[in-house]
Amino acid sequence: MTPKIAIIGAGPSGLAQLRAFEAARRAGLEQIPEIVCYEKQPDWGGMWNYTWRTGLDENSEPVHGSMYRYLWSNGPKECLEFADYSFEEHFGRPIPSYPPRAVLLDYIIGRVEKSDVRKYIRFGTAVRWVEWSDDTQKFTVTVMDHNRGVLESDEFDYVVVATGHFSTPNVPHFEGLDHFPGRVLHAHDFRDAREFTGKRLLLVGSSYSAEDIGTQCIKYGAEQVTFSYRTAPMGHDWPGQFSEVPLLTHVDGKIAHFEDGSTREIDAIVLCTGYRHHYPFLPDELTLRTNNRLYPRDIYKGIFFQRNPKLMYLGAQDQYFTFNMFDAQAWYARDFMLGRVTLPDFDAREEDIDLWRAREEKLSSPIKEIDFQAAYIRDLIDRTDYPEFHVERQGEVFKQWKKDKKNDIMGYRNKSYTSTLTGTLAPALPAPWMEILDDSPESFLRHDFAAASDPRDATGDGRTLDRERVRASRFPARPAASHIAAAKA
Amino acid sequence: MTPKIAIIGAGPSGLAQLRAFEAARRAGLEQIPEIVCYEKQPDWGGMWNYTWRTGLDENSEPVHGSMYRYLWSNGPKECLEFADYSFEEHFGRPIPSYPPRAVLLDYIIGRVEKSDVRKYIRFGTAVRWVEWSDDTQKFTVTVMDHNRGVLESDEFDYVVVATGHFSTPNVPHFEGLDHFPGRVLHAHDFRDAREFTGKRLLLVGSSYSAEDIGTQCIKYGAEQVTFSYRTAPMGHDWPGQFSEVPLLTHVDGKIAHFEDGSTREIDAIVLCTGYRHHYPFLPDELTLRTNNRLYPRDIYKGIFFQRNPKLMYLGAQDQYFTFNMFDAQAWYARDFMLGRVTLPDFDAREEDIDLWRAREEKLSSPIKEIDFQAAYIRDLIDRTDYPEFHVERQGEVFKQWKKDKKNDIMGYRNKSYTSTLTGTLAPALPAPWMEILDDSPESFLRHDFAAASDPRDATGDGRTLDRERVRASRFPARPAASHIAAAKA
Repeated sequence: MTPKIAIIGAGPSGLAQLRAFEAARRAGLEQIPEIVCYEKQPDWGGMWNYTWRTGLDENSEPVHGSMYRYLWSNGPKECLEFADYSFEEHFGRPIPSYPPRAVLLDYIIGRVEKSDVRKYIRFGTAVRWVEWSDDTQKFTVTVMDHNRGVLESDEFDYVVVATGHFSTPNVPHFEGLDHFPGRVLHAHDFRDAREFTGKRLLLVGSSYSAEDIGTQCIKYGAEQVTFSYRTAPMGHDWPGQFSEVPLLTHVDGKIAHFEDGSTREIDAIVLCTGYRHHYPFLPDELTLRTNNRLYPRDIYKGIFFQRNPKLMYLGAQDQYFTFNMFDAQAWYARDFMLGRVTLPDFDAREEDIDLWRAREEKLSSPIKEIDFQAAYIRDLIDRTDYPEFHVERQGEVFKQWKKDKKNDIMGYRNKSYTSTLTGTLAPALPAPWMEILDDSPESFLRHDFAAASDPRDATGDGRTLDRERVRASRFPARPAASHIAAAKA
Repeated sequence: MTPKIAIIGAGPSGLAQLRAFEAARRAGLEQIPEIVCYEKQPDWGGMWNYTWRTGLDENSEPVHGSMYRYLWSNGPKECLEFADYSFEEHFGRPIPSYPPRAVLLDYIIGRVEKSDVRKYIRFGTAVRWVEWSDDTQKFTVTVMDHNRGVLESDEFDYVVVATGHFSTPNVPHFEGLDHFPGRVLHAHDFRDAREFTGKRLLLVGSSYSAEDIGTQCIKYGAEQVTFSYRTAPMGHDWPGQFSEVPLLTHVDGKIAHFEDGSTREIDAIVLCTGYRHHYPFLPDELTLRTNNRLYPRDIYKGIFFQRNPKLMYLGAQDQYFTFNMFDAQAWYARDFMLGRVTLPDFDAREEDIDLWRAREEKLSSPIKEIDFQAAYIRDLIDRTDYPEFHVERQGEVFKQWKKDKKNDIMGYRNKSYTSTLTGTLAPALPAPWMEILDDSPESFLRHDFAAASDPRDATGDGRTLDRERVRASRFPARPAASHIAAAKA
């Protein structure tokens, strides 16, 4: 009797779950569960798809994506490498540590394209409602199939929520926004920096969105960026066009007023005020309620919903680690659904959550947070057959990244790091990041990075890649990218 | 045994439904039904509220409003006057035919403020799901109360869908939008024309949104507006900054390409491509499926859902007439819910729909469309005690408006029309509409329109208003508007 499983979302974490089952199949599992993965977008990749759309999409569903043009990875790719699929295997050669969005998406997709998992995904299908029945011990999942324009329901033994938590903007109000004579938007709706060429921008917030959208806008010609912080400035050594001021109190016409009494004339306002965990398809009793933190309450091992562990959440934590953390979770969730592991009882689970949570609440620095999340992932991967990827070493890369960013906020993407899988030190970007305005994969992958690389074996296992066997990048196969193949030849 | 009624939405049509019951109470009805009106916004007024927000609101619900700053009525107020509450009664004096948004909202709210109906409304409460049970013959309505953060369900005998159909944008894709180096938005997200000062705009569409957003943008300093039409140009005598071109085929960088082979360099794109009837809270078997047309199928008398007439839709038609049409519908729906009228059987209703639909399908001009909708409203009001408002005469005003608009698209708002209720010819605007940049109610109502008015008795009933009895505008009572009271004194 194989279980029936619903996965909600075909982004990095939903795909991790599909890949986890595929890995089990390859390892000899004969009874593959019945799996349906519901994805409201027309394609896989989740957040990593770019869309020009904002607000509601072509099916009147809230747009999932928060991606903008010219987004490059803001952390080293060496820290998000899948343990079972290196960047080098995907691209057939080493590439720099900070690739642009479309290159990262290509990597994510490359792995699942090699698995036979696309068949499980129902695209253009939005989950409207999930209910649990104590009688049948099953979930009923109701979905809107936009391809056919019909609602339908199906029953499942397990539900995996893989919808992410960077899609639903948290949008505070500030006095005067109703009369501001320019655009006011949340980072979720930010798409193309060139809209703001020559403009003076106010960015409210001091986390990743503010930092990255601010630098992007200056890179593409904005005149001035003012960051407004609630608690503390980011404190980077910003170039002259940037400044940091305390929290916005109100706007009067084009004049923004801040808590320290200072004012500034601005042309547009970007609210980089974060995202909310939002599960409108779940009834209250199945809804994870948490802010963005490393160890939310109510999910055992950061996955299993306490009141009903047959409901699982992937990637619901705040994240240093991403893709490989989702993998670690998905492998463990898979083993639970396959009956390979059993969970302790409620109280024991609660105790475990308490222990982790107590550790989390004592964390006093990013360094310690990185170690904490590495330890969390280690705890998961030691329980499954997910391949070794030296998460602690990746943690060290994260710490170096933190330093590099602190030292040079506009130039940290020029750094290179060593893969814990292949031991290869990434080649340098072909030019300083601030000077590369074309972020298309065709342009990026045209370069013969290999010539610039300085391979070292950081894993110490002397493993080398058989270049004949690795799959070449998919870009040369695309009509628009034939020049890439030529440049590489 | 009084029925229990759910009204979804507290905009003009939901408020019409509440007012209809209030009118019955005043007329002596003793058994007032139990009514709950669910409104996801924090206040009443529906579409007529302005918000700076776009996309998702503070509760992560899709933003309802499509209103933008500087929106003025694009039709004469004489055609949307409530039969039981004239503009003159509300403002205590005649005002011009084309008021700005906030003045119209004030009028809508003024009527319901005088009724004791706010108590029925649950603000910040979004309807998630409606289900009908054949067993109980009741609807179960599930709502998310964002004030308390809980989902809850309640049972009702009747459900009135008053959510409108100008909130969910219809957003087509055009090749190249992914790489357009400027803002791309749907009219639904348009907020402040000053964002586009000095810009060259492409507006895709040729209906009210395109026409009005285009004129607003030029009024507030846009450099150029290009309209792209699918079927036919609007054909107005546009000033030099405007032009009309065939449908957009694709965008290449900043260059827009059109079906006639012409191109144009543009800075921003506004998709004025209409709205969708969207009822994500209804199961398929209760969902009205229609495009925007004067006589949708499946609703008897334009109100009662054929497969279950206990489900009613208000304002689901394409609209020349608005507020008083919603009233006419709400009064009739009320009488049905009170058991004062019974509906014929399914087949007879179907036949009636067929007749109206056949007439609708033969309509060959706006003039005939106006007559058709007036006849539809006449058919409704003759069945209830909704006061006489001379809908046919209002139809004539609409026809004059059509002509005035054709003659002068930038200046038609300078015209005045006669109220079918009071017989008063509206006073002129204090300056040509193109020159009035401040659309605040304080600024608008500061003027002593009375001096400019030329009252005539167009109704022929010699009715005059007792100025002592009429309620003064609420603006003088507002702190910010004390200068208005002074100006009026």
